[in-house]
Amino acid sequence: MSKITSSILIIGNEVLSGRTQDINVQFIAKELSKLGINLSEVRIVTDNKKEIVINLNQLRKKYDYVFTTGGIGPTHDDITSESISEAFNVEYSINSEAYNILKNFYPKGELNEGRIKMTKMPKGARLIKNPLTVAPGFYIENVYALPGVPKIMQTMFPNIINNLNISDPIISETVHTNLFESIIAKSLEEIQNKFNDCEIGSYPNFDYKSNIGGVNIVISGKNILSVKKAKDEVIKIIKKMGGK
Amino acid sequence: MSKITSSILIIGNEVLSGRTQDINVQFIAKELSKLGINLSEVRIVTDNKKEIVINLNQLRKKYDYVFTTGGIGPTHDDITSESISEAFNVEYSINSEAYNILKNFYPKGELNEGRIKMTKMPKGARLIKNPLTVAPGFYIENVYALPGVPKIMQTMFPNIINNLNISDPIISETVHTNLFESIIAKSLEEIQNKFNDCEIGSYPNFDYKSNIGGVNIVISGKNILSVKKAKDEVIKIIKKMGGK
Repeated sequence: MSKITSSILIIGNEVLSGRTQDINVQFIAKELSKLGINLSEVRIVTDNKKEIVINLNQLRKKYDYVFTTGGIGPTHDDITSESISEAFNVEYSINSEAYNILKNFYPKGELNEGRIKMTKMPKGARLIKNPLTVAPGFYIENVYALPGVPKIMQTMFPNIINNLNISDPIISETVHTNLFESIIAKSLEEIQNKFNDCEIGSYPNFDYKSNIGGVNIVISGKNILSVKKAKDEVIKIIKKMGGK
Repeated sequence: MSKITSSILIIGNEVLSGRTQDINVQFIAKELSKLGINLSEVRIVTDNKKEIVINLNQLRKKYDYVFTTGGIGPTHDDITSESISEAFNVEYSINSEAYNILKNFYPKGELNEGRIKMTKMPKGARLIKNPLTVAPGFYIENVYALPGVPKIMQTMFPNIINNLNISDPIISETVHTNLFESIIAKSLEEIQNKFNDCEIGSYPNFDYKSNIGGVNIVISGKNILSVKKAKDEVIKIIKKMGGK
């Protein structure tokens, strides 16, 4: 089974300035794991049209899917839709379906310039419904434009799943040990070499209060049996080395 | 004053899988703001040498500084040092200063293969001292290699500040309003156009329990007076439009 790949392009000065802690990557990453889609790369760029266009064009050619977050609201710094239009070299104009959704939702006279802006999209884009705050996202070819506000993005994400090619979920098992990483490094590498359909990662953690170190060893892959066998071998070497 | 630019390259399967929530971007971003250095881009890539080399070479040519996090530990999946060596086309070998630090720290016989691996770096690299867990990071030209474990990275970061060209800090002021974003969009754009040495961002938030929407308007820049004036104008338009 060939790997399905994807990337996230975050349009977000607020993340790059450190004012906002991004939590969209982790949400999307977990959802994609369940769908058997690999998240291969994330980029966070400024609200700059040229940068968005360059990066989007690189990512959409390299990966099966690109998910963008942020920049589809009503203000001057929301330039994602315009930038995606430019990346695809298509007209940036009002999407009549989106326009009708907003027209029906807002009381007469309240469909102002900012709200109309939210109906402007790349020509040929199709809508991603927004059950929470109405203004839709959109997708064009393999690019899915989602809002940056986590709660809104999260309610919209399920609406795109039916469009995606999915695969067996990526499962992962974690083994924790009190041994130091450097002690088990060599044995872990041997297990990794033996199970090439699994990915074995080693993530140290350290409790600075109790001065106790430890490692989470994460075995992941799509072949449940293989992940299980690799996990058993990891547990075996930990015991052999006197760890727990 | 010309802008000082930077980027972060996160080497992290654990972030891309959704198992780990990255918090290093926000920490580094905030530190850089204080130093007047713009964080212009972040990339998160897999533990794959080819990808690390390609992305590192793009970023180090484009920005004044690149900070990498992750992948400098003792296990098989720690390939950042080797990848940086390849990107710079220099030998990947034991750094004698790092070797001596570890040799002096560990009891005799405990400087095992994994620990020795942590002393291997690009030839010509200089050390970033690690007050917490001893094994140093390193820098070569404009690339700073830091560990991925937040607490360790955070204790090491101050040790690189003296190397960086710094500038006036980037200050930011936030104005919160209960008005909807679309209502103030046009006026905000006018203020943005007037103050081109400030960056004005608009970030909606929504309390789903109380059904109350609102917006944080963030004005940032290096010119304190300009930021202050732009802020006053934002407050003025909010009052004019009946908001608070």
